[in-house]
Amino acid sequence: MGACQSFREMCDREKNTNVHLSLPAVCIVWQTAMIILFGVFMRYDHESDAHWVEHRKHSNLTDIENDFYFRYPSFQDVHVMIFVGFGFLMTFLKRYSFGGVGFNFLIAAFGLQWALLMQGWFHWLDADGKIRIGIENLINADFCVAGCLIAYGALLGKVSPVQLMVLTLFGITLFAVEEFIIISVIHARDAGGSMVIHTFGGYYGLSVSWMLYRPNLHQSSRLQGSVYHSDVFAMIGTLFLWMFWPSFNSAICDHGDGQHRAAINTYLCLASTVLTTVAISSLFQKHGKLDMVHIQNSTLAGGVAAGTAAEFMLMPYGCLIVGFCCGIISTLGYIFLTPFMEKHLKIQDTCGIHNLHAMPGVVGGIVGAITAASASIEVYGHEGLVNTFDFMDKFKDMVPTTQGGHQAAGLCVALCFGIGGGIIVGAILRLPIWGDPADDNCFDDETYWEDKKALLVSLSGIFKILNKS
Amino acid sequence: MGACQSFREMCDREKNTNVHLSLPAVCIVWQTAMIILFGVFMRYDHESDAHWVEHRKHSNLTDIENDFYFRYPSFQDVHVMIFVGFGFLMTFLKRYSFGGVGFNFLIAAFGLQWALLMQGWFHWLDADGKIRIGIENLINADFCVAGCLIAYGALLGKVSPVQLMVLTLFGITLFAVEEFIIISVIHARDAGGSMVIHTFGGYYGLSVSWMLYRPNLHQSSRLQGSVYHSDVFAMIGTLFLWMFWPSFNSAICDHGDGQHRAAINTYLCLASTVLTTVAISSLFQKHGKLDMVHIQNSTLAGGVAAGTAAEFMLMPYGCLIVGFCCGIISTLGYIFLTPFMEKHLKIQDTCGIHNLHAMPGVVGGIVGAITAASASIEVYGHEGLVNTFDFMDKFKDMVPTTQGGHQAAGLCVALCFGIGGGIIVGAILRLPIWGDPADDNCFDDETYWEDKKALLVSLSGIFKILNKS
Amino acid sequence: MGACQSFREMCDREKNTNVHLSLPAVCIVWQTAMIILFGVFMRYDHESDAHWVEHRKHSNLTDIENDFYFRYPSFQDVHVMIFVGFGFLMTFLKRYSFGGVGFNFLIAAFGLQWALLMQGWFHWLDADGKIRIGIENLINADFCVAGCLIAYGALLGKVSPVQLMVLTLFGITLFAVEEFIIISVIHARDAGGSMVIHTFGGYYGLSVSWMLYRPNLHQSSRLQGSVYHSDVFAMIGTLFLWMFWPSFNSAICDHGDGQHRAAINTYLCLASTVLTTVAISSLFQKHGKLDMVHIQNSTLAGGVAAGTAAEFMLMPYGCLIVGFCCGIISTLGYIFLTPFMEKHLKIQDTCGIHNLHAMPGVVGGIVGAITAASASIEVYGHEGLVNTFDFMDKFKDMVPTTQGGHQAAGLCVALCFGIGGGIIVGAILRLPIWGDPADDNCFDDETYWEDKKALLVSLSGIFKILNKS
Repeated sequence: MGACQSFREMCDREKNTNVHLSLPAVCIVWQTAMIILFGVFMRYDHESDAHWVEHRKHSNLTDIENDFYFRYPSFQDVHVMIFVGFGFLMTFLKRYSFGGVGFNFLIAAFGLQWALLMQGWFHWLDADGKIRIGIENLINADFCVAGCLIAYGALLGKVSPVQLMVLTLFGITLFAVEEFIIISVIHARDAGGSMVIHTFGGYYGLSVSWMLYRPNLHQSSRLQGSVYHSDVFAMIGTLFLWMFWPSFNSAICDHGDGQHRAAINTYLCLASTVLTTVAISSLFQKHGKLDMVHIQNSTLAGGVAAGTAAEFMLMPYGCLIVGFCCGIISTLGYIFLTPFMEKHLKIQDTCGIHNLHAMPGVVGGIVGAITAASASIEVYGHEGLVNTFDFMDKFKDMVPTTQGGHQAAGLCVALCFGIGGGIIVGAILRLPIWGDPADDNCFDDETYWEDKKALLVSLSGIFKILNKS
Repeated sequence: MGACQSFREMCDREKNTNVHLSLPAVCIVWQTAMIILFGVFMRYDHESDAHWVEHRKHSNLTDIENDFYFRYPSFQDVHVMIFVGFGFLMTFLKRYSFGGVGFNFLIAAFGLQWALLMQGWFHWLDADGKIRIGIENLINADFCVAGCLIAYGALLGKVSPVQLMVLTLFGITLFAVEEFIIISVIHARDAGGSMVIHTFGGYYGLSVSWMLYRPNLHQSSRLQGSVYHSDVFAMIGTLFLWMFWPSFNSAICDHGDGQHRAAINTYLCLASTVLTTVAISSLFQKHGKLDMVHIQNSTLAGGVAAGTAAEFMLMPYGCLIVGFCCGIISTLGYIFLTPFMEKHLKIQDTCGIHNLHAMPGVVGGIVGAITAASASIEVYGHEGLVNTFDFMDKFKDMVPTTQGGHQAAGLCVALCFGIGGGIIVGAILRLPIWGDPADDNCFDDETYWEDKKALLVSLSGIFKILNKS
Repeated sequence: MGACQSFREMCDREKNTNVHLSLPAVCIVWQTAMIILFGVFMRYDHESDAHWVEHRKHSNLTDIENDFYFRYPSFQDVHVMIFVGFGFLMTFLKRYSFGGVGFNFLIAAFGLQWALLMQGWFHWLDADGKIRIGIENLINADFCVAGCLIAYGALLGKVSPVQLMVLTLFGITLFAVEEFIIISVIHARDAGGSMVIHTFGGYYGLSVSWMLYRPNLHQSSRLQGSVYHSDVFAMIGTLFLWMFWPSFNSAICDHGDGQHRAAINTYLCLASTVLTTVAISSLFQKHGKLDMVHIQNSTLAGGVAAGTAAEFMLMPYGCLIVGFCCGIISTLGYIFLTPFMEKHLKIQDTCGIHNLHAMPGVVGGIVGAITAASASIEVYGHEGLVNTFDFMDKFKDMVPTTQGGHQAAGLCVALCFGIGGGIIVGAILRLPIWGDPADDNCFDDETYWEDKKALLVSLSGIFKILNKS
C-alpha cells in the first residue's frame, strides 16, 4: 500500500492532475463571456416574445399554433437523451460513474450556450444583428452538444474536465461551421444528424483519441471493466436513448407528416436493430451468452442510421432493413474492430463510439443519399417532394438525383471536419497544461472527485481481504 | 467449489442452456420474416405519408391537427413504461437484473413488429390489402407487447430467451385475436386494457407458469431475493409505470375530453392505491415495517383497474374508491395468495403478476361493466354518450345496460384466451429443446450473460469469506 | 454485537418506532376522508366532462384546443420531477434509499389529493359549491406537494412516516392559504413558484427541523454519508429535476408565448448554474476535486431562482446572470452555511434545502420584483404587458412599479408562512406519539422497512470482517 501510494504520488508529480485553478477559471471566464455575448446578440424570437399576442391576432392564429406546441415534447425527449441518455450510458465503468455522468453534465451545459451563439450567427441572425431564439434553437443546441458528447465517449476516463471544456469549445465551433456548409451551402437534408452529428462527432472523438494515444494504458486495466450494478446503470442510459430516438430524429422535421414519418421510421429501425444485435452477440460468444456491452450500445445503431433519411419515404420495410444491417455491423465492430483499432491503429475508444456512432452514421449518410436519389413524384406527390426536400427558393430547380449527390457531398464534409478537426484539437490537448491523469490513474473517479471516506475504507478493506484469501 | 462446479456441469448436461445456435437463428429468421411481411403489407397512413400536404390543404386542416400532435406525448410515455417501466421493475432480483431488463428489451422489440402486423391485419387493412400505419398503431403495438411482458413477470428467471421469443410470438397472436373479438365483435370498450391487456396477460403468464411448474425450484432459493440496490433499481420501474399510467390509459382515447378525463381518472386512482398499499403492508408486518415488494408492485394496481373505465364518467370519488380497494386486494394477494398458489396450485409467480395485473384487471373489467351499465344521458349528455361508448353505425341502437353486458362478455373472453392460450403455449414450452435453465440455475444471470470476471471474483470472494466467518 | 443489540433495544423502548397501528390508521382514515370529500365536492370541469363535445361545437373549437393538449406534456414532466426527481435526489444516503424514495412516494400521493381539495376550495369553486378539476388542477396539486417534499429534504432520515403524513397535511393546508394570499389577494405573479413553493417549502422544513433539533444526532453519523452507487442513484433525481425544470416553470403559464418564454428562460438559467457550481466546488476543495453533493444539488438552484420571473421578459442574458449568481450562492451555502447552521443555529438540514430551495427561492422572488418593476411597454408591447401581468379586472389600473411592490410583499408572506407554520407544525411533531427514531437509529432503513435477510447478513458480515482486519 505504501509503495503504491508513493508511486502514485510520483505519477502525480509527473502528471499534475490538479485542476484547482484551471477548472474554476475556465468555468467562470467562459460563463462570463457567454453573459456578455448573450447580452449583445441574443433576443427572443417572435413566438416567445411578449409581442406575440399582437402578432397572433394580426396573423389570425390560435395559441396552439405557436411552434412551442409542435416541438416542446420532442425537445424534452432530446434533452433527456443528452443528459440522462449519454450521461448514464457512460456510467458503465466500475469506478468512473461520477466522471461519466458528471462531466457529461458539465460539458453539455456549457456546450449548449456556445451552440446557441454559434448556430445563431450562422442561421438565425436578424437584419439588426440579433439572434432570435425559440424552441427550435434549443433543440438545435442540444443536437450540437450531442456531437461533443459522442467524442467524449472515445476519451472517457482518460482526460481532465479542463480538456473536455476545450474539446467542447472547439467541437461546437467546428460543428456549427460544418453544419452550415452541409445544410445551407450544399443543401443536404439531415433531420436526425447521421452525418452532421454522428459521423462528425464520431470521427472527431476518434481523431482526438488517436492524437492522445496512451501506450501504457494497460496500467489502469484493473479499472477498465464494469461491475454488475454499473452495467445496470448504463442500461438506464441505453433505454432512454433508445426510447426517445424517434423524438431525436423527428424533433426539427417539418410540421405534420414530416415529424410523424420520422418518428415511425426511427421506431421501426431501432426495433429491428435489437434483434440482430442479440443474434450476433450470442453467435460469437461461448455457449451463446450475451455480452452486456453489445446490448448497451449496438442496439442504438439503428437510430443513428435512420437519422438522415428519417423524414424521407424510407418505407417501413426499408427501416427494418437498415436496422437489420446496423445491428450486425455495430456488434461485429465491437467484437473485431475495436480491439484491432486499439492494437494496430493506436485508437483507444473507451465506449466504442466507432461502432455506435461513426460507422452507423456513415451508413445513415449513404442510406440518405440513395433514398434521396431514388425519390419520385409517384411516391411523394409533387407538393410532398418539394416540401420534404425543400426544393424552394434558389434550390427550386433541383431534382432528386442531384439531391442524392449533394447528400453524398455532405457526408464527405462531415468526415473531413471530424477527422481534420479532431487532429488539430487533439494536438492542442496534448499540451502538458490541462491536468490530464497519468496512465495508471485513468478510469478512476478519485482523480477528480472528492473522496468519500466511507467508500474508500469499505472498498479498500474488501480488496485487502480478497487479496489475502 | 470444485464439487459445486461439477454438480453444475452435470445439471448443464441434463439441462442444456446453450442457446448458441437457437437464439441467433430465431432472431435472424424472425427478423427476416418481418422484413418480408412489412415489405408486402406495411405502408404509411395518410397522416404520415408525404401526400399529407395535399390532403391537408384539401381538407382545410392545420398542421397541428395531424394525429401525431394528439398522441405523440402519450406514445412516448407508454414507450417508457414498456422499456424502462417493465424492464426495471424486473431488476429487483439480486442476480437477474441483466435478464430482467435485457430480455424485456429483446422481446418487446420483437413483439412490437409482430403486433403491428397482427393488429394491422385485423383492424387497419385497406381495400388494397395494405396496412396503413400511423402513431396510433405504434401505441397499440406497445400495448400488445405489454401483455407479453406481464406474462414474462410470472416466468422471470426460469425461462430461456428462446422460450421468451416463442412466448411472445404466440402471445401477440392470441392478443390480436382476443382484442379483435372483444373490441370489434363484442363492442366492449377498453381504453386502458384492464381486460384486453392485464387480465389476458396475467392469466396467460400464470397458465404458462403452471405448465412449467418446477417442484425443485427451492434449489435456487439463494438467488430468489433482492439486495438493497436491486430494490432501488426496481423503484425506477415502479415510479415510471406509476407516473405515466395516466398516459397509458388515455393514449388511444377519443381526442379532447376523452383523453383528458382518462388521464384525470387514472391519476386519482393511483394516488389512492398508494395509501391503502402502505396501510396493509404496514398492518401485516412486525412492528409495522413496510415491505418493498408491496410498494414496488401493489401501488400500481389502481392504474390497472382504472383501465376499462378510464374514459367513462367514473367521477373523481369513484376513482378513489377503485384505487382504495385495489391497493388492499393487491397487497393482501402478495401476503396470502402468492404463497398459497405456489404451495397448493403449483403456480410459481416470480413477480406476483396475479396481484398486480390479473386480479386488478378483473376488478377493472367489472368496474367498467358497472360504470357502462349505469351510464345515463343526464351524466354524459346525448352526444357525450354516443361519443364515449361509440354508439354508432351498427351499434347505434345500443343502450348503456346492454353495453354493460357486453363489457362483462369481454372480460370472459379475456379470461378464456389467457388461460386457454397459456396452457397450449405452456405445453409447447415444455419441449426439451428451448435451452431453459436447471432448477438450481434459475434466477442467475450467469446462465445467459457473459461473465464479468471482476464481478465473479469479488462476489465469490465475499461469499467465501462470509461462509468462513 | 450483543451489547449493541441490547443498547438498540433500550433505545427502542425509549423511542418507540412501532408504527404498526398508527401508520395504517392514518392512511386508511385519511384516504376515507378524501373519498367522502371528493364525493361531496369534486367534479370534472367542462373540458374533461363528457358534455365537452357539445360545448366544443357550440364554441366552434377544434379538439386540439382542449387545455389538455396545451399542458399535458408539461404535467407529465412535473409529475416525473415530483416522484422520480425529488424521490431519487433523496436516495443519496448509504442506508436510507428506501426511505428517501418510498416515503416521498407516500406523502406525494396523499398530498396531491388534499391539495386538489384545498386549492379547489380557494380557486376553483363553482357557484354550485363544486370544485371543477382539469389538467391545470393536477399540475397545481403537484406543485403544492413539491412544497412539502422540499420540507422533507431537511428532515430526511430523522422522522417517521406518520410524522411525514402530518407534516404534509398541515403543509398543504398552509400552502393553499399562502398561495391564495400571494396570487389572488396580493396579485403577485409566481409562475414557477420561487416564492410560493420554494421559499415557503424551504423555510417550512427548516423551521420544523429547528423544532425537532437532535443534539445527539452524531450517534448515527456512521450512516450520514453516501456510498458510490447511492450517489449515482441521486444523480438520476438531479438530472430529471434539471432537465424538466423548464416544464415546471412553464406548466401553468399563459398559453402561447408565456409557456414558450418560461421554458427558454429556465433552460438558460440552469445551464449557467452548472458552470458556476463546478467552479466554486472545485475552488474550495483540495486539488480542485469536485464534490458530488454540490453537483447533485447546487446545479438546480438556477431553476428555483428562475421561477417567479420565468414568464417575464427576463432576457436571455438576464437568465444567465441569475443562474451565474445562484450557482455561486448555493455552493457556498453547502460549504459554509450548512455546517454553521447545524452548529450555531441548531438547524439540521439533511439535504441542504436551505442552499437548494430557500435561498435561491428568495433570490427568485427578488429577481421577480425587480423584473416586474422595470417592465415597460417598449419591451412587452401594450397587450403583452396586460397579458403577462394580468392587468385585468380589478387590477386593470396597475402599473409595473406597483406590481414590483406587490411581488416583494408576496415574498414576505411566503417567508412568514414558512417560518411561522414550521414552528407550529414542529411543535406538534415533537409530541412523543409519532414513532420517530432514536438518535442512533436515524438514517437507517431498518427502522421502517422490512429486513431483507440477505442484505443484512452480507453487510453485517462485511462490517464484521472490516472491523477485524
